[in-house]
Amino acid sequence: METMNYAAVPTAKGPEEKGDLGFGAVVSTASRKRLLNPDGSFNVRRVGLPWSEAVSLYHSALTARWTAFFSWVVLIYLGINLFFAATYMLCGDAAIVGTGATSMGGPFARAFFFSVETFATIGYGNISPAGMPALFVMTFEALVGVLAQALITGLFFARFARPTAAITFSKRAVIAPFRDGSALMIRMANGRKNELIELKASLSFSYVDASGGVPVRRYRALALDRAEVTFFPLAWTIVHPITPASPLWALDAAALHEKDAEILLLITGTDDTFATTVHARTSYKPDELDWDTKFTNIFLPPNAAGVMSLDISRLDETQPAK
Amino acid sequence: METMNYAAVPTAKGPEEKGDLGFGAVVSTASRKRLLNPDGSFNVRRVGLPWSEAVSLYHSALTARWTAFFSWVVLIYLGINLFFAATYMLCGDAAIVGTGATSMGGPFARAFFFSVETFATIGYGNISPAGMPALFVMTFEALVGVLAQALITGLFFARFARPTAAITFSKRAVIAPFRDGSALMIRMANGRKNELIELKASLSFSYVDASGGVPVRRYRALALDRAEVTFFPLAWTIVHPITPASPLWALDAAALHEKDAEILLLITGTDDTFATTVHARTSYKPDELDWDTKFTNIFLPPNAAGVMSLDISRLDETQPAK
Amino acid sequence: METMNYAAVPTAKGPEEKGDLGFGAVVSTASRKRLLNPDGSFNVRRVGLPWSEAVSLYHSALTARWTAFFSWVVLIYLGINLFFAATYMLCGDAAIVGTGATSMGGPFARAFFFSVETFATIGYGNISPAGMPALFVMTFEALVGVLAQALITGLFFARFARPTAAITFSKRAVIAPFRDGSALMIRMANGRKNELIELKASLSFSYVDASGGVPVRRYRALALDRAEVTFFPLAWTIVHPITPASPLWALDAAALHEKDAEILLLITGTDDTFATTVHARTSYKPDELDWDTKFTNIFLPPNAAGVMSLDISRLDETQPAK
Amino acid sequence: METMNYAAVPTAKGPEEKGDLGFGAVVSTASRKRLLNPDGSFNVRRVGLPWSEAVSLYHSALTARWTAFFSWVVLIYLGINLFFAATYMLCGDAAIVGTGATSMGGPFARAFFFSVETFATIGYGNISPAGMPALFVMTFEALVGVLAQALITGLFFARFARPTAAITFSKRAVIAPFRDGSALMIRMANGRKNELIELKASLSFSYVDASGGVPVRRYRALALDRAEVTFFPLAWTIVHPITPASPLWALDAAALHEKDAEILLLITGTDDTFATTVHARTSYKPDELDWDTKFTNIFLPPNAAGVMSLDISRLDETQPAK
Repeated sequence: METMNYAAVPTAKGPEEKGDLGFGAVVSTASRKRLLNPDGSFNVRRVGLPWSEAVSLYHSALTARWTAFFSWVVLIYLGINLFFAATYMLCGDAAIVGTGATSMGGPFARAFFFSVETFATIGYGNISPAGMPALFVMTFEALVGVLAQALITGLFFARFARPTAAITFSKRAVIAPFRDGSALMIRMANGRKNELIELKASLSFSYVDASGGVPVRRYRALALDRAEVTFFPLAWTIVHPITPASPLWALDAAALHEKDAEILLLITGTDDTFATTVHARTSYKPDELDWDTKFTNIFLPPNAAGVMSLDISRLDETQPAK
Repeated sequence: METMNYAAVPTAKGPEEKGDLGFGAVVSTASRKRLLNPDGSFNVRRVGLPWSEAVSLYHSALTARWTAFFSWVVLIYLGINLFFAATYMLCGDAAIVGTGATSMGGPFARAFFFSVETFATIGYGNISPAGMPALFVMTFEALVGVLAQALITGLFFARFARPTAAITFSKRAVIAPFRDGSALMIRMANGRKNELIELKASLSFSYVDASGGVPVRRYRALALDRAEVTFFPLAWTIVHPITPASPLWALDAAALHEKDAEILLLITGTDDTFATTVHARTSYKPDELDWDTKFTNIFLPPNAAGVMSLDISRLDETQPAK
Repeated sequence: METMNYAAVPTAKGPEEKGDLGFGAVVSTASRKRLLNPDGSFNVRRVGLPWSEAVSLYHSALTARWTAFFSWVVLIYLGINLFFAATYMLCGDAAIVGTGATSMGGPFARAFFFSVETFATIGYGNISPAGMPALFVMTFEALVGVLAQALITGLFFARFARPTAAITFSKRAVIAPFRDGSALMIRMANGRKNELIELKASLSFSYVDASGGVPVRRYRALALDRAEVTFFPLAWTIVHPITPASPLWALDAAALHEKDAEILLLITGTDDTFATTVHARTSYKPDELDWDTKFTNIFLPPNAAGVMSLDISRLDETQPAK
Repeated sequence: METMNYAAVPTAKGPEEKGDLGFGAVVSTASRKRLLNPDGSFNVRRVGLPWSEAVSLYHSALTARWTAFFSWVVLIYLGINLFFAATYMLCGDAAIVGTGATSMGGPFARAFFFSVETFATIGYGNISPAGMPALFVMTFEALVGVLAQALITGLFFARFARPTAAITFSKRAVIAPFRDGSALMIRMANGRKNELIELKASLSFSYVDASGGVPVRRYRALALDRAEVTFFPLAWTIVHPITPASPLWALDAAALHEKDAEILLLITGTDDTFATTVHARTSYKPDELDWDTKFTNIFLPPNAAGVMSLDISRLDETQPAK
């Protein structure tokens, strides 16, 4: 495995050579896994992180889906109240007193509902604490309640403030006629109501180069017909013309498969609603390329008021290029 | 509609050719709608968004006006309490007890006000829950109250933190005398108390080019006499000198109208109060251009302390250029 | 006042000509006010803002000093409770009942403290609402309490999150010996515990040019011996060598005064604690320049552990340059 | 100490000369302290800060560890309640009344727990305030409770939102074989679950130059074989080839030690989870350099699903370079 050490792999940079996108030049002969998943996540695991980071409650609390997030909130809410109920039980039978105590079906339920009234800072007073131990536990739970409110509020906002560009990429790339030749095309649209502006695209071609004996993964930039747009109200079709200068020139499906090729697309832009920089990325393997195919027009005719529109749900539609 | 597919439209880039701002080269012959509205929103609709995005409660909660936002808050507050009132009703007649119960005009009102005292975590104790069903509903409502407080706080702050540049553009652009010739001028001012700094302007000219047979929409950059200012304490007049190198050279009002022209202005800058990047944009159609007109001076004479000032309410004032 | 219209003032750009920093080329003969105050605020007023912006409660709430902020909070808190006390008074004598009512010195005080218990969601229950009118007012006040908590939390955080670089500039600039000639020097230090990194400085010279008949304000960049530093743990002395290429070459104090000169310094950098971009600026008029003077060394000898330190309180100290 | 004044030290800039990173050219002969600590903090103290900044509660509240943060919260919570307990004591014996008062072991404990119930806005009502003095103190404490909730929430979120890149650098740098010669190498990995993208590295060499008589600290950039990576899913080895053009050429361990050398590494990147710019830095002194050593491969063989992984806990592992 010596060759997996980066320093052992010499690199030569040509004019369009990008060297390395951060995945290294290492070639695993045991698998042909993609580098980047279609959803933009990396196909690699890091082990040996410290325990605190490996579980990383904060990271999970931010990136979990809302359903999972709320489920955890409910579980923690019940857990805290069960814990304090048990603690009040330790304070003795006379710790929780009041007119409401008789309707609460037993000492533990009484302690539990007292905890709820305290944690949420309601305090009806139908039951209240008596005796120093219960009063001190109550004092502590009151603080926990204040901190929990602060924590949940902070998490809510941190989840809201997290910039996420919902750029939808076409599931497949196409090789379509373009000018006098052909071009690699990928179509994308903004799947959110937020406006995105000042988008920049960067397309790379990753492949295994076995010409030097030891197979090495190489990365080359693919020039784009247009690499930036100022606005993004419609769909945008990324176009890489396959000219003789292109690393894709004269390569067919079989050659791309043999080189374990991967087309990587990176988008950066600005969310106009939040003025944050957003990133999106995806990749295509050779079996996600359609040859001699082009994207179908998804613009709808202007409506009565003359407003143009496009149908994002048809982003993936293609048709044969006669 | 084949020509609406981007790839079918070849582009040739000249020195000042911007290719496309993201609106595409498609020309709709059915209407002459502007690309960009004067307030900077895009004149295009996206359909086919997933249901969750199409309604996008979060986006609406952020961008709604404060009056609409508060109206929704009140409605949701009442709705939640009505829902819980109904739920307490299902717990039976003896679910809500207490000395205050008699003054509350009926079981539903009692349940409603109990819900209010619980949701807002007040808990006077004039009424309180009795029996397991009501106690469990109360436990759930207490959590809803905590989450609602967190949600409303997060939304308040997200609304505050949203960077919005209130750049006010003159409603009309003018063609005024400039040096030995004339120039296209647009005047703008900062309509907020926040200071804006490091402003950059970018002016584009969009028009329909029918010279190639199929009409195609083209975009060209318009060079500015000054494209950046470091500070923006006063008004700023954007000046595009109409020299022989300008795409506007020798075009008159009729020619601009015939080409379905549109002048697009983009501003980016930094909000010095929040250190966020802000964007503003507007556009002018041929009938929003005043020829042989110039902006009126809106500076006021220095006051007794020698401090200069300008009157933003007169931003749109013009006068004939003799 | 015709000459105050920007378009009427032709500009010629030399190699170091910055054109305009955003203050315009207008020269007011009525006063010789500085453009930028030493604290970085602009010496100009904007009038004619819409009423809502002119008062701009949000802007004031963010930029007010903490003492003013808290004073307003207390006043608004009392105001809200007085308003609701008056409203409960309208609900009749029997609206607020309870065992605690007798100790509260009269109906208005009772209504006021009931409002406090409701607004802050305490609800001891020593007094509680009775009758539909009071219950509805209580329902509304409970919502106001929730919203007020959200608002005050949002404002607290917005105040915290506001990036503010506390760069301290020397009160006076000096003309000190430098290499074989002399240089304009300004000293600055970071007055906060936050680390600032990647600082960039930009120095400009603004003066009135009367050579063309009509006096016009001009702006020229002043080249710096070093315009960037990667770190800012110590003091940084900005140095503009006064070479024959400098716009300051051969100008003395009298000439600068006659030209109504102003030296403008702009700093941008990154706050390493919050990863926000921060800006600071200041300016010097001719009477804030010390000739043949240099800054005193403010480094302290390394301590026992060998750690270097500097004394920021002595930033302004200068000494004659023999 | 005259030579510590920056202006007295002339600088000559060569092609790779960085001038100064912000540490100044001053050489302290009393110590050979490093400029930058391995954790990226600066080895310098600033004194003379105004009192308010020197303690800077906000800065401390943000940067303190969570354990210290919570300890302070608990202390302040107890302190506030002790303060208000004492204040209620001043209101007289009959200020706090109610059925719960008898179980509270004395007037001060009663006043303390009443304060807790008020501050946390619980208000069971087992004890409640009586008489104007206690009611006014209660009114004030209710506001303090609201503000404290806002403050703690704001601090929680500010702590969450603070961008912190947990880039782990190898504790030692190595001089390893590279192509036909050797190179200085530093290995780094992302110690967080957040994805970092668009990383840029900048490596500098700081040393004492005694050639001009007065020893002066100089800074030179070290060219990198690759200065940027687009993604950072794996480890990244920074490589500076020691060619004849390198400032390190022909220097051995003794020479570096004699020059009091320091290698400074700066990383900037983008946190993909929060879209914030993050910074990390470290430095290596001559005794932290391993000669003729190389980093051990830390890639693990692909698992059954073909997914590659690397073991971050072995980042520091090196082996002799035969």
